[in-house]
Amino acid sequence: MDKPIIAISIGDLNGVAPEIALRAHSQIREFCTPLYFTNYEMIEQAAQLLNIPIPSDFDIEYIGGSFTIRPGKVSRESGEYSFRSFQKGVEFTSAGITHALVTLPISKEAWQRAGIPYRGHTDYLRHRFGREIIMVLGVPQLWIALYTDHIPLRKVPKKIRTGRLTEFLTRLYPLFGSERISVLGLNPHAGDGGVLGDEEKKISKAIKRANKGIGKKVFRGPLVPDSAFAPHIREREHHYVALYHDQGLIPLKTLYFHEAINVSLGLPIIRSSPDHGTAFDIAYKKGFSINTTSYINAVNYAVRRALL
Amino acid sequence: MDKPIIAISIGDLNGVAPEIALRAHSQIREFCTPLYFTNYEMIEQAAQLLNIPIPSDFDIEYIGGSFTIRPGKVSRESGEYSFRSFQKGVEFTSAGITHALVTLPISKEAWQRAGIPYRGHTDYLRHRFGREIIMVLGVPQLWIALYTDHIPLRKVPKKIRTGRLTEFLTRLYPLFGSERISVLGLNPHAGDGGVLGDEEKKISKAIKRANKGIGKKVFRGPLVPDSAFAPHIREREHHYVALYHDQGLIPLKTLYFHEAINVSLGLPIIRSSPDHGTAFDIAYKKGFSINTTSYINAVNYAVRRALL
Repeated sequence: MDKPIIAISIGDLNGVAPEIALRAHSQIREFCTPLYFTNYEMIEQAAQLLNIPIPSDFDIEYIGGSFTIRPGKVSRESGEYSFRSFQKGVEFTSAGITHALVTLPISKEAWQRAGIPYRGHTDYLRHRFGREIIMVLGVPQLWIALYTDHIPLRKVPKKIRTGRLTEFLTRLYPLFGSERISVLGLNPHAGDGGVLGDEEKKISKAIKRANKGIGKKVFRGPLVPDSAFAPHIREREHHYVALYHDQGLIPLKTLYFHEAINVSLGLPIIRSSPDHGTAFDIAYKKGFSINTTSYINAVNYAVRRALL
Repeated sequence: MDKPIIAISIGDLNGVAPEIALRAHSQIREFCTPLYFTNYEMIEQAAQLLNIPIPSDFDIEYIGGSFTIRPGKVSRESGEYSFRSFQKGVEFTSAGITHALVTLPISKEAWQRAGIPYRGHTDYLRHRFGREIIMVLGVPQLWIALYTDHIPLRKVPKKIRTGRLTEFLTRLYPLFGSERISVLGLNPHAGDGGVLGDEEKKISKAIKRANKGIGKKVFRGPLVPDSAFAPHIREREHHYVALYHDQGLIPLKTLYFHEAINVSLGLPIIRSSPDHGTAFDIAYKKGFSINTTSYINAVNYAVRRALL
């Protein structure tokens, strides 16, 4: 395979997605053949608002639809359009026409307004493929798999159950691409011997059981969360399991805000995305430079996975 | 006042504390007059084990006691001794003989073994002065005040109450030394409009009430926790309120593991300490270099506060 063909779902056209696609095209063109799921009229509209020329090799897979772009607004039309773009990208990739899917950011609120019965990309993929998906975020030197993701913090401690975590770790191992994975504790100082919480006992058991099942000591921990990402620890640890959203995303975004990407593991297709949203507050605004690093990293990841 | 006199409680002699005191002496001597709460025999014993000479101007305030140092061990004798050193340091500082107190790390377990009825330094200070203490950790460019500290994560959400948080913020403001303080949300994406938790409503109310009481907009938030410490946010935000231990300590230690210090606000005396423990695992061991940065920063902070 020469350059993989990457399906790019166009995201919410009222947000920063089309600007990112247009601005980063020449860079990603160097290592892949992008195929954008949209139509010429819509891209032309975005390009004119942004005053960016459409590159001559900006290949489009037609998604019908026509509406006026309203910069920074949550709209039904834009929500529906972004969903159809994404859905077709999934089907093309599932059929092998495209080798991987990179999704530009959509608005969950806009999906809701359009009556789409999925909370977001991951929710749809879970239903479409009937699989549990593991949400992984990171950069090449720091990958974080989330044991729980978009739930209130108060619901997290109850989810720490030995059996469930053992299953999660066992499923994660063949997908995560590492023989050394650090599992964080839940409580301050990882419970300090039980004085500051006792969920660490269950975490320890799950680690032991998962390692036993795999037949080698892949998982280690539970690590004291606050020092787990200290510079001297990060020198040797590159793969982590965080038990809740902010436990993993705070250190990641503190260090690599613009670089980090989002990856869905456990699917029959390769899917990645930039780790940011529609950025409605700065979309189409003069004087704001849109950072394309996360998107380019997401495409790069998809390409490397496709070439394996 | 020329150089402030700083009381240094000697910490647990079985840990890294005496090595830190001996190694950093000449550096802190440049900006303060340290007074070490120990006795010559004990320091001589530590110095011989470490093969470090005792500096000629290593001034000692006598704390009676004699026992054999057992490197890396939790011991009753060492626990009791570290408590008496600390207690006398508190009294000297409270009486104004010393201008501030820097506490070297003790072992909470050793205190327990010695039958000392306090869980640690802060617990003792709370009782001694009959005041609520606010635990603050940080470096000059990033300070974090903890709303809750050493409690299990599952107990945190229930502690988020409007009245209690309003009081905390109101008490923090005159102590924290900033006119611009960021308060974090509790949930992923700060609750995402209530979909991922609703404690943010109470946090918002507390912020408004505290600002109203103070008469100006000092507090802002609740901020989305995962992006609150991103590089471009840290450029302008230097004072944060974290709602739980790891929410504040993960980003701090990820960035400044060796530099960060611990400060007790709300006391009639100035007290700071290095933000690390006894490090029993490497105490008195050859081939391990003990990092003195956090300690030196803690002394420096105490000196600057004493000079105000």
